[in-house]
Amino acid sequence: MINPGKMKAAVLMAPDVLAVREVKTPKPGPAEVLVRVASCAICGSDLSLMAHPWPGQPPYGEFIPGHEYSGVIAALGETVDEFRVGDRVAVEAHYGCGRCRNCRRGNYTSCLNYGKREKGHRANGFTTNGGYAEYVVNHVNTVYPIPDSVGFEEASLITNLGCVLYGFETVGGFIVGDRVAVIGPGPLGLISVEVAKALCAGKVYLIGTRASRLQVGASLGADRLIDVNREDAVQIIREESGGIGADLVIESSGSAQGLQMAIAMTKRMGKILLLGFPEEPVAADFASLAKDNKSIFTVRGEGWGNVGRAVSLLASGRVDLKPLVTHSFPLEKIEEGFKTFRERIGGAVKVVVKPNEDIGKSAR
Amino acid sequence: MINPGKMKAAVLMAPDVLAVREVKTPKPGPAEVLVRVASCAICGSDLSLMAHPWPGQPPYGEFIPGHEYSGVIAALGETVDEFRVGDRVAVEAHYGCGRCRNCRRGNYTSCLNYGKREKGHRANGFTTNGGYAEYVVNHVNTVYPIPDSVGFEEASLITNLGCVLYGFETVGGFIVGDRVAVIGPGPLGLISVEVAKALCAGKVYLIGTRASRLQVGASLGADRLIDVNREDAVQIIREESGGIGADLVIESSGSAQGLQMAIAMTKRMGKILLLGFPEEPVAADFASLAKDNKSIFTVRGEGWGNVGRAVSLLASGRVDLKPLVTHSFPLEKIEEGFKTFRERIGGAVKVVVKPNEDIGKSAR
Amino acid sequence: MINPGKMKAAVLMAPDVLAVREVKTPKPGPAEVLVRVASCAICGSDLSLMAHPWPGQPPYGEFIPGHEYSGVIAALGETVDEFRVGDRVAVEAHYGCGRCRNCRRGNYTSCLNYGKREKGHRANGFTTNGGYAEYVVNHVNTVYPIPDSVGFEEASLITNLGCVLYGFETVGGFIVGDRVAVIGPGPLGLISVEVAKALCAGKVYLIGTRASRLQVGASLGADRLIDVNREDAVQIIREESGGIGADLVIESSGSAQGLQMAIAMTKRMGKILLLGFPEEPVAADFASLAKDNKSIFTVRGEGWGNVGRAVSLLASGRVDLKPLVTHSFPLEKIEEGFKTFRERIGGAVKVVVKPNEDIGKSAR
Amino acid sequence: MINPGKMKAAVLMAPDVLAVREVKTPKPGPAEVLVRVASCAICGSDLSLMAHPWPGQPPYGEFIPGHEYSGVIAALGETVDEFRVGDRVAVEAHYGCGRCRNCRRGNYTSCLNYGKREKGHRANGFTTNGGYAEYVVNHVNTVYPIPDSVGFEEASLITNLGCVLYGFETVGGFIVGDRVAVIGPGPLGLISVEVAKALCAGKVYLIGTRASRLQVGASLGADRLIDVNREDAVQIIREESGGIGADLVIESSGSAQGLQMAIAMTKRMGKILLLGFPEEPVAADFASLAKDNKSIFTVRGEGWGNVGRAVSLLASGRVDLKPLVTHSFPLEKIEEGFKTFRERIGGAVKVVVKPNEDIGKSAR
Repeated sequence: MINPGKMKAAVLMAPDVLAVREVKTPKPGPAEVLVRVASCAICGSDLSLMAHPWPGQPPYGEFIPGHEYSGVIAALGETVDEFRVGDRVAVEAHYGCGRCRNCRRGNYTSCLNYGKREKGHRANGFTTNGGYAEYVVNHVNTVYPIPDSVGFEEASLITNLGCVLYGFETVGGFIVGDRVAVIGPGPLGLISVEVAKALCAGKVYLIGTRASRLQVGASLGADRLIDVNREDAVQIIREESGGIGADLVIESSGSAQGLQMAIAMTKRMGKILLLGFPEEPVAADFASLAKDNKSIFTVRGEGWGNVGRAVSLLASGRVDLKPLVTHSFPLEKIEEGFKTFRERIGGAVKVVVKPNEDIGKSAR
Repeated sequence: MINPGKMKAAVLMAPDVLAVREVKTPKPGPAEVLVRVASCAICGSDLSLMAHPWPGQPPYGEFIPGHEYSGVIAALGETVDEFRVGDRVAVEAHYGCGRCRNCRRGNYTSCLNYGKREKGHRANGFTTNGGYAEYVVNHVNTVYPIPDSVGFEEASLITNLGCVLYGFETVGGFIVGDRVAVIGPGPLGLISVEVAKALCAGKVYLIGTRASRLQVGASLGADRLIDVNREDAVQIIREESGGIGADLVIESSGSAQGLQMAIAMTKRMGKILLLGFPEEPVAADFASLAKDNKSIFTVRGEGWGNVGRAVSLLASGRVDLKPLVTHSFPLEKIEEGFKTFRERIGGAVKVVVKPNEDIGKSAR
Repeated sequence: MINPGKMKAAVLMAPDVLAVREVKTPKPGPAEVLVRVASCAICGSDLSLMAHPWPGQPPYGEFIPGHEYSGVIAALGETVDEFRVGDRVAVEAHYGCGRCRNCRRGNYTSCLNYGKREKGHRANGFTTNGGYAEYVVNHVNTVYPIPDSVGFEEASLITNLGCVLYGFETVGGFIVGDRVAVIGPGPLGLISVEVAKALCAGKVYLIGTRASRLQVGASLGADRLIDVNREDAVQIIREESGGIGADLVIESSGSAQGLQMAIAMTKRMGKILLLGFPEEPVAADFASLAKDNKSIFTVRGEGWGNVGRAVSLLASGRVDLKPLVTHSFPLEKIEEGFKTFRERIGGAVKVVVKPNEDIGKSAR
Repeated sequence: MINPGKMKAAVLMAPDVLAVREVKTPKPGPAEVLVRVASCAICGSDLSLMAHPWPGQPPYGEFIPGHEYSGVIAALGETVDEFRVGDRVAVEAHYGCGRCRNCRRGNYTSCLNYGKREKGHRANGFTTNGGYAEYVVNHVNTVYPIPDSVGFEEASLITNLGCVLYGFETVGGFIVGDRVAVIGPGPLGLISVEVAKALCAGKVYLIGTRASRLQVGASLGADRLIDVNREDAVQIIREESGGIGADLVIESSGSAQGLQMAIAMTKRMGKILLLGFPEEPVAADFASLAKDNKSIFTVRGEGWGNVGRAVSLLASGRVDLKPLVTHSFPLEKIEEGFKTFRERIGGAVKVVVKPNEDIGKSAR
């Protein structure tokens, strides 16, 4: 039933305590739509914000997390003609205030009014309610139609792909022929391998410690796997490049070692993109960075409309997110889903939760 | 025989008169190599410079044209350790002086000392001798190793691919999901279709007047063919984009009509890349350009090392130049080759000349 | 009196017919402010849209033009804490819908929903009411505080400066030492001279036909004046640059001759910025453009927050707009103001209209 | 006497041992000039390479350091028509090989053949002989004419200005209205203050520990001095920017504290430029960097022809390097010059050595 006034949702009741409860179904404002959620993927940041509230997070007992989701348009705000009820869609999390200096320049994921609902900002699953629910409200800006060829499950991973694309655009894009090293075979690292290949990188290295994850990377197109427990990644890349190093290094392990390797293996005048980062300060060799004219770029979320580009990439088949979706749970079993993701049970990469199993099942 | 002191070459004796003669084999300077030519492709600019001398062109009776060639390293200058004799290579035409303001910034195809041999500039096949010969001297900067998987014939078309890549880089690269329109299904237009697809464009239009050429474009990946004799290209692209227009329009027809269509079909804030141009001034709608914040970019040659990227792209199989090589002639029959190219006999797209048929044959 | 329910405004009743009438004072929405107008400058585009309605223009009898104005905050929308009543402010015209692909990327002056009020777009003085009135409503995005050192009259010219800055940013900024040629000594051309000097251009040429206007340019910092009735601008710039040409040419005359000169005097690999344009198609030498790797950039309005940068530049004294304000009229005499501007009576450059003479007078 | 076969020069005989000796005067090659040195400034890197040899440094007993110098053209290589004997000139240190992938793209200060003389690379004062001598040979690429209004002493500091400009260009240029913080009031920091002001920064902070140096910064245009022994720089900048932070932070102290402050005071989506760096790895807050989408840029030398821009800036008077030249010594007293610089005797900022006192004196 569409929009019956009440819906089921996983509400954060206390640190690390999610409860599936019946709550009021939200109503879309003039420029918003109501999305009936097919699939909502668990992200590492969910673990973090469930343990300790992030800035702007709503209070316990009210907040519904989940920012990576897909679904079907269930209702339209009054000015919305960009969509029709029934449209299959994916979403992005960040909706900037539209009035700060960053939003004004298109940098809405770096909104300076982050968390200020009254200024218009919303980040579903962070500062406003998200996708571990039957329904969720999105501003039209954050909604992208997906073709029938893209399944809901992979579509719920699309912010990951959007984030990686935002990173590639941030470092200047146009990768044809470049030597790219990806450190850390987590979801963002694996997707980075795919995007580097899609953009015609000359050679893509995937560097990590877990053989099983490296193998996933191989199946997604990595040209050379380096297990740092057995090989010296910096030395290999130097040797294979005539001593020069990698044109672009993508650090997505979030470890001190990964960061240090990244700086060491980047070529003179090369670029480093951080998709992960250590929570605590770590020592880094800024002398190497500066002497060799290297630069470090970061990304916050999936900016500059790159979720739109991500839809195109999925639809073309040039990037495939399906292999990353290893597990699926109904909303009622969301706790089991989180446990599976956190403990990587059964080689879990990405775990999705399905609040409306009918659409979750019917579509691919 | 390698470097026997004499070689055969096609010398430009007078306007539009090429004579195959025996001339002295050139010797490489300290930073140069001698290339034994396997394949040299005929380019539209050859027709032009043979009809009327271009700036900096050597005198009749001395000048050997041909700037699109591949071959094998036959001898090394004294400081060259970047190559070994026997290496299979492709080349680019432009070697900047290295001392003008443009070269200093890496814009060597736009060298401000163009044609000044004494300042170090050379452009083989334009201002210095080129590839319609058994041997030719190249500065190491202009030589790129090619893997065995890339045949000599397609390798001799590599400056075309380098030029298109330079264009894509010039307009800012990163095409994922963009709507790209290519006007003019000549070699550069057809390669633009391939590159747009390789860079994950969302939809690629190929616009022209000749059905056979459009069909070549379809086989190379164009999503939508528009025969302007039968359809209104501007209207189609507007309609299919919700009235917005194309993100990037590549004009390679060199016609007034193509240029005018390009401006009309580009979206607000979109980009136009000129790979062709009308020789005479033509009327253009600058009001549309300015009111809609569109920009026009051009490229001169195959700059910024993009021939290196082109080699990578060919080696990966993501772009294929073989379908463009429709005819091949030995050096002795170069006049027949030019006639075939000029008159498009047998549906000719690119015609190659092979000064050394042994290597022309042995490799793919 | 602040916001008394009724106000005086110049309403466009028919083509080229403005009538000063009493109308309802508008009320600011939640994210909007009410501006009490001190000075509203007449722009060339006012002449055009008064003659023939522009896209999205409100009907005759309702529409108040005027998009270049300054004033004082008179009332605040409910979510506005960026301003206080009494703040002195300047404005920009364009407020994008915030939901199209261009706005999403920060390109709000090129909004794809231009003129669609229901989608959120507004362009005061074009598609919504403007500043030839005692009061006008602005979204907070389009309002910038000005320090006491900046007078209201020059502040009402700030979109001109914002537009020029947007142009300099569009072509890539960082002009230190560059050779810059400005064609057309109208307001945008004169301001371009000032900005080029402020950004440390090496030499700035001002090219035009009217000696008096050229002299204004000299007083604003132009290093070399070229009267095209007496000198050959292309030749002079070539000669003074060792044959190379100008790094950046800013065409603001809007004439065919200006455009043709611009292409001819730009150096190989140089840039052309169009701040003016001919309404009708004109012949241009695209062969020169393409052979010499030149590019053409345009700007639409004063994008990317450059009005904010303009305020800083005015406050610093590095750019001075006061010399451009040659005439001032009260709202009642707006017709005389337009006549003065149109016919350049008394050497008029910019003419301002002052709907509230008390603030128009009190501040500098 | 010009070029008499023998000249005096300061030769590095052993670690930290300079001896003024008579050596053979060098001869310029075909594309080189001989410079008669008027002034050669001591740089911090001189101290470092004299203590421990840098990569590619010539052996003790042969090597003449000194890379910041100015002088007069004394002789021309055979292909040089860019200069005439007697021209007053400044120089840059880096001359790339012109054949590696970085040089090919214009990134010659990051030459991948650094130190390989046989490949064409030279870096005077680092890998080839420098300016602590009566004469030195320079490739024409590295020589810039200076007008009479620019004195030799300040001209010998021009690589410092070129380096800072290269930094501003690297971070994207166009600083109008931006909030810029400079950490470390050494020569590069002080020049950064000047350049930020020249490019119309909105507000420039200078942050340091030594009151006297901060005062120099104030005289050069810093808007706000912050003595970190007495004030909290991060807090001040946050407060003055409404909690947002600085748009651009230039770290030139080379200290761990400076680096950490830089990351902390940069706004979300802001940029950090490293002009100094700690020799040893230091802990940095990459979580802050990544969460707030900040980027770190570095520069190596004075690339992209920015010494040419620096000459223009000096000639215009918009930047003044004379206040930085606090001490001057003849070549014979070079040891005393180094002592003065190292120990900052008499408040030394930059110390210059004058191998030819006649030209050192005659010109300003």
